[in-house]
Amino acid sequence: MPDKPIPPTLNGAESLVRTLVSGGIEVCFANPGTSEMHFVGALDRVEGMRAVLCLFEGVATGAADGYARMAGKPAATLLHLGPGLANGLANLHNARKVPVPMVNIIGDHASAHQPFDAPLTADVADFARPVSHWIHSSASARSVAADAARAVQAARLPPGQIASLILPADTAWGAAERPAPPLPVPGPATVSDRAIADAAASLRSGGKVAFLLRGAALRGEGLEAAGRIAAKTGARLVCDTFAPRIERGAGRVYVERLPYRPQPAIDFLADTQTLILVGTQAPIAFFAYPGQPSELTPPGCTPLVLAHPHEDGAGALEALADRLGARAAAPVTPFEPPALPTDGALTAESIMRIASHFLPEQAIISDESVTAGFPHYALLDRAAPHDCLQLAGGAIGDGMPVATGAAIACPGRKVVSLQADGSAMYTLQSLWTQAREQLDVTTIICANRAYKVLRDEVQGVGLGQVGPKGLSMFDLTNPVLDWVKLAEGMGVELVRVESTAGLAAACRSAMSQRGPRLIEAIF
Amino acid sequence: MPDKPIPPTLNGAESLVRTLVSGGIEVCFANPGTSEMHFVGALDRVEGMRAVLCLFEGVATGAADGYARMAGKPAATLLHLGPGLANGLANLHNARKVPVPMVNIIGDHASAHQPFDAPLTADVADFARPVSHWIHSSASARSVAADAARAVQAARLPPGQIASLILPADTAWGAAERPAPPLPVPGPATVSDRAIADAAASLRSGGKVAFLLRGAALRGEGLEAAGRIAAKTGARLVCDTFAPRIERGAGRVYVERLPYRPQPAIDFLADTQTLILVGTQAPIAFFAYPGQPSELTPPGCTPLVLAHPHEDGAGALEALADRLGARAAAPVTPFEPPALPTDGALTAESIMRIASHFLPEQAIISDESVTAGFPHYALLDRAAPHDCLQLAGGAIGDGMPVATGAAIACPGRKVVSLQADGSAMYTLQSLWTQAREQLDVTTIICANRAYKVLRDEVQGVGLGQVGPKGLSMFDLTNPVLDWVKLAEGMGVELVRVESTAGLAAACRSAMSQRGPRLIEAIF
Repeated sequence: MPDKPIPPTLNGAESLVRTLVSGGIEVCFANPGTSEMHFVGALDRVEGMRAVLCLFEGVATGAADGYARMAGKPAATLLHLGPGLANGLANLHNARKVPVPMVNIIGDHASAHQPFDAPLTADVADFARPVSHWIHSSASARSVAADAARAVQAARLPPGQIASLILPADTAWGAAERPAPPLPVPGPATVSDRAIADAAASLRSGGKVAFLLRGAALRGEGLEAAGRIAAKTGARLVCDTFAPRIERGAGRVYVERLPYRPQPAIDFLADTQTLILVGTQAPIAFFAYPGQPSELTPPGCTPLVLAHPHEDGAGALEALADRLGARAAAPVTPFEPPALPTDGALTAESIMRIASHFLPEQAIISDESVTAGFPHYALLDRAAPHDCLQLAGGAIGDGMPVATGAAIACPGRKVVSLQADGSAMYTLQSLWTQAREQLDVTTIICANRAYKVLRDEVQGVGLGQVGPKGLSMFDLTNPVLDWVKLAEGMGVELVRVESTAGLAAACRSAMSQRGPRLIEAIF
Repeated sequence: MPDKPIPPTLNGAESLVRTLVSGGIEVCFANPGTSEMHFVGALDRVEGMRAVLCLFEGVATGAADGYARMAGKPAATLLHLGPGLANGLANLHNARKVPVPMVNIIGDHASAHQPFDAPLTADVADFARPVSHWIHSSASARSVAADAARAVQAARLPPGQIASLILPADTAWGAAERPAPPLPVPGPATVSDRAIADAAASLRSGGKVAFLLRGAALRGEGLEAAGRIAAKTGARLVCDTFAPRIERGAGRVYVERLPYRPQPAIDFLADTQTLILVGTQAPIAFFAYPGQPSELTPPGCTPLVLAHPHEDGAGALEALADRLGARAAAPVTPFEPPALPTDGALTAESIMRIASHFLPEQAIISDESVTAGFPHYALLDRAAPHDCLQLAGGAIGDGMPVATGAAIACPGRKVVSLQADGSAMYTLQSLWTQAREQLDVTTIICANRAYKVLRDEVQGVGLGQVGPKGLSMFDLTNPVLDWVKLAEGMGVELVRVESTAGLAAACRSAMSQRGPRLIEAIF
């Protein structure tokens, strides 16, 4: 609970902030406007809420996502009316797909003002609907605290939900009663014995079994239990192509990554007879392509749900390991980071090799390197132990915000933001917040100066030939984006490198110091 | 019609592009992804569609807004699925409030893929709803052309609508029949004789009358007719605080601007007995404030609608002038641009003075200078004749995109983008498109290094005192945004100035040359 005494009369905004703090929310990623002024005013009257200013709302929502992935609890966002929320929607889409807990506080016009068509008038709930599990607009200043407690509860419901609380300005400035105490939140549901028995039976049947893991099953005790089961039964451990969070590197149980494209994914699972799902769904193609299937479970393979996303997947794996008598720890990945490449021009492969070589212990990787990082993901397998955060919802522009939020959640750990130049442009304002908060984030921009992923898609979608006008839509060389200048423009120290020796020196330096840094790696 | 012959088999995307071109759409502001590849592929097979790549979707939608304001017809946007549309929503909100015609083409997953929960799966129509007057998702490749013709028709319906056509990938790649011919679009409705008679009666009654003008009434023959009426009757001519487009400067009829804050606006209209509305609504406060009214029409003043936004406001003014026998042209503003200030440090006032002094004839101003430009708006009254485009929907971040689109609509005219540093950060990617297309845009960043508008709001909303944590939410000095570097990072030539002489030299140079330039004016 906050230390400062509650004043005899407090307004709705202050009752809200106090309720959020009581509910365990410590950070608010904010881009406020006039209708959120009373929330801003409350920040100094309530202890325990860190306000992090973001210069674009997509940074705020993406940072709240990264924070929640690492902290395991919600942050708040503070957004200005329908359009401010709109600017944060793409990263709310990503957050919903993880899913993570998050509480969005969205200011609205005062109730009496809403019937009029002022410039900023819009139906805020309509904007919130596509990305929110829970939406409520406060009806009065006296109900704001209770509404906020329900929003926190909704956000914390397993496996994590997006709660959007709309705060008409009069409910922020009007007189409130008192903050509301936190509401109970159930933990993840226990998996039924039947589900565990079914999984055990399929593992004992002698058929080829693979686990597809997500959520808590990809870290800590969940991952160790999965490893024991694999060691005992020979089952494969696989994660989604884009795992929101996975513990990787030396000392961890090795998990294979499902390939991105449909046919390789189907081939990858070809001899699997049972696919046991833990916290995820049966695999689906990222995009549809003419003549190719959407469902990637190969013919003859039966998906079997051990744990739904809202269930205790880690606990189910432990129970399953016990039932199988799988007590022996799995072999873990050795610490054998890739050797540095010989000096020369940079390639996507050498960038990932060098980043992997210098990765500090317990680093957090936010990976939005797209075509640069994708084929070289395996280079990080034997790096120092780390968490890897991937783009769960497919909407590019969350890598740098997620890195920002992760750094705030884990101030003692180095965050490495692996970025592509095209995707970095969507939310480059993240760098300013990283500088302002002096976050320990090293951003490596893999600058191929193209939307290369789209160039690669031309054949996939069956386009025979694309002419110069079409090809120009994938080209980022005219003009060249100068990330050194962009980063300097936002107060982040940086260096540009064009050789493996240059990148190695830059990484060695960045990884051994704290604070925000950017390395533009041209290849 | 396109020059290249229509191939014997064409796909849905090509039938779409051909239909758009037939419908008079010549420009597409694009940020495509995999699901839009066939549209991209069609660009080289169809003559007549200019594709302008934007590195963020808010740039694309804001540019389409600026284009439509100046061209008087729709551009298309090309957006990638729900999240790509989401990134463009804030500026679609602005465009809806202008309103302008616009055709959004939003790719979606192939129909067969939509039931599956892939990372990018979302209900695109749900995202489109808050900002669209018309939404349709094509059901088959064969219906795409007809759907596109209806989308263009919907967009062009007076006073301009946002039409969102959702294009599942299979309807883009599947076989189509033929492009669809343009559908008829009625012009703006003629205002009834009764409305004209009522307005004439109120003007003849001897009471104090003011016109509140918007749309076509603020330019060309509409504005001249309004001037004749004012000259004959003594009525005041007023425009909304944020007029989407107004012809100002030397040789134009002078129009007063409604003040921004509620009490000054009410005072401004205090002795008005009849407020005749032409293409706009009775004035509404931008924000609500405790104890202040939303409706700004003063007590005792009757609003009278001469022309609704979808009606022919310019024609109504001409008919009204005829009925009143108001044949004598109104006095127009003389060409007396403000003198240059004496040398010294920059202020908001001196920045606007210098910009006004050097403004070239027929320039287009995109004004998002917020607190810097607002109090000094009058300095442009006697500048060279120009069009001024204001932030119609209140969602900051449209100034630079609007400037981008206006420059494409009017390649022979200088565009001057008056920006505040805080608002410029929302869509700074606009600079890259300006550089790529070598647009004749001079951006002047009024860099006060704060969200000053919010600092100014603290008293307005009745917040007594804001502590250091709250105040830090309005502060952009830590770190300082370096616009010189940001602009260089995107290939735009620039200069930083901190004195009136420096700004004068920079403006003189920028206004006398063509091409994208940025001036950071520190004050």
